[in-house]
Amino acid sequence: MDFSEDDSVDAVTASFADTPDPRLREVMDSLVRHLHGFLREVRPSLAEWERGIEFLTAIGQKCDEHRQEFILFSDVLGASMLVETMEAARQSGGASGATGEESDATASTVLGPFHVVRSPERALGDSIDSVGTGEPCLIEGSVSTPDGTPVPGARIDVWQADDHGFYDVQVPDAQPLGNGRGLFTADDEGRFWFRSIVPAHYPIPTDGPVGALLTATKRHPYRPAHVHFIVEAPGHVPVTTHVFVAGSAYLDSDAVFAVKQSLVRDFAPVDDPDAAARHGLPTPFRRARFDVVLQPASS
Amino acid sequence: MDFSEDDSVDAVTASFADTPDPRLREVMDSLVRHLHGFLREVRPSLAEWERGIEFLTAIGQKCDEHRQEFILFSDVLGASMLVETMEAARQSGGASGATGEESDATASTVLGPFHVVRSPERALGDSIDSVGTGEPCLIEGSVSTPDGTPVPGARIDVWQADDHGFYDVQVPDAQPLGNGRGLFTADDEGRFWFRSIVPAHYPIPTDGPVGALLTATKRHPYRPAHVHFIVEAPGHVPVTTHVFVAGSAYLDSDAVFAVKQSLVRDFAPVDDPDAAARHGLPTPFRRARFDVVLQPASS
Repeated sequence: MDFSEDDSVDAVTASFADTPDPRLREVMDSLVRHLHGFLREVRPSLAEWERGIEFLTAIGQKCDEHRQEFILFSDVLGASMLVETMEAARQSGGASGATGEESDATASTVLGPFHVVRSPERALGDSIDSVGTGEPCLIEGSVSTPDGTPVPGARIDVWQADDHGFYDVQVPDAQPLGNGRGLFTADDEGRFWFRSIVPAHYPIPTDGPVGALLTATKRHPYRPAHVHFIVEAPGHVPVTTHVFVAGSAYLDSDAVFAVKQSLVRDFAPVDDPDAAARHGLPTPFRRARFDVVLQPASS
Repeated sequence: MDFSEDDSVDAVTASFADTPDPRLREVMDSLVRHLHGFLREVRPSLAEWERGIEFLTAIGQKCDEHRQEFILFSDVLGASMLVETMEAARQSGGASGATGEESDATASTVLGPFHVVRSPERALGDSIDSVGTGEPCLIEGSVSTPDGTPVPGARIDVWQADDHGFYDVQVPDAQPLGNGRGLFTADDEGRFWFRSIVPAHYPIPTDGPVGALLTATKRHPYRPAHVHFIVEAPGHVPVTTHVFVAGSAYLDSDAVFAVKQSLVRDFAPVDDPDAAARHGLPTPFRRARFDVVLQPASS
């Protein structure tokens, strides 16, 4: 029988009927149903379909070792944040899955497209900034479980944009690779601290197809100022998250929908010469505290 | 308020609210709803989401001047054929849109990924094959409107795989560019004819991510033997279609879902030395007749 609009889903899902991996079959069946549902609703002309093919192709071709335009596309469609939100609900036990509510663990948020190089190992107290033009800050915190038990030796991977809003990989002439990045190990009491500069809000990269989409839809490309964290420790559920700078522009309209109120922290000015000297910082400096709570993996 | 699974569609569609082009806004709204619906149904883990990003990126990066892997992906998901079917229903007046039924005009089918170079202009009767290893054939027909009025000067763009199942652009060492392709102009009575070789069934390209998907899902990559046509004339609705070779393998399981029974034709053997001599063909040769009916554009 000829392919028809009414039978298109059946015809195509039938072709996936022999898929050995049941999960892959489930994903392909759902993809076909939702993709055909989208097409039947939008009823693209052939010219529009071609434009869509060109757009997806351009996204793929914009990707390279240091640029991940498909993650950016997923981000601006809220897809990354939705996946992250569902993953967090599952990790916290699933009971609250439908609402996206989380447990007592630190809330997660999107990975983003800039976790593309390995963060250099650094000692507690080191600075992740080697350029020196930004406003100095100290970020400190602890890693513990919900009942307050410290997690000694937790690994804290951080990366951030500079005071101009760029990550190292975006401006190799202005920042050495590894600038704004650090991989720290919590001390015996689960504590960590490092020096950096206060990050700036910034536009996601707009020189590719995703930027063109934002322009065409009159969406701004900005993200509020933040520092990325991945915190993990054996026997615990890892968390991918940010700490956001309180008062930053765009906290209420993040281009990638990633703000959670529980992740916003004051980067308060500190005018304490003793504290500054202790940390090797000038006076005044700014200080933020970000305590991370990890769920034990068994729960 | 924090982004949540329940509100994700509202949060993201709201971000597209200022899109100046109403059609683009409609497409983005629908895309977000169906994409989030897919994700909520499948509930991908972060690792699965990353695998999806990698897959789409690999598709984009497989594309070049002569390879369109995103069209191939659209094809094996039945998306190309669905769009083509809806376009044909719209062109024929839309009344039968829901069923995909078409008018008296020649049925359309997918463009496919190999219409990537311009077909060389050729005179009626010319051969589009310059390699000479296949079984010679004559393809002839007419272009007319549904009431039988000839369409003189119609343009007939044809392209096909060779007897090994390859298009020129796939095997530049074995076929000169333009082999298997031709752009013809119908005569004063709307007739066209040209020489070629009987095409073979063939696998769609399997050396990329789409091939890997077919392997993982135990789908075969084959298409039944066919010749592609785009026929157009001023004042008429153009048609993108194929003529399929009757009896070809895979007519009932085309990897891209593009077979329509009304497009299957006998490529019957002809043992007629006079006819062979008239067309510059050896005896025996094979002959197929494909009359094309174009809808006047006003209807």
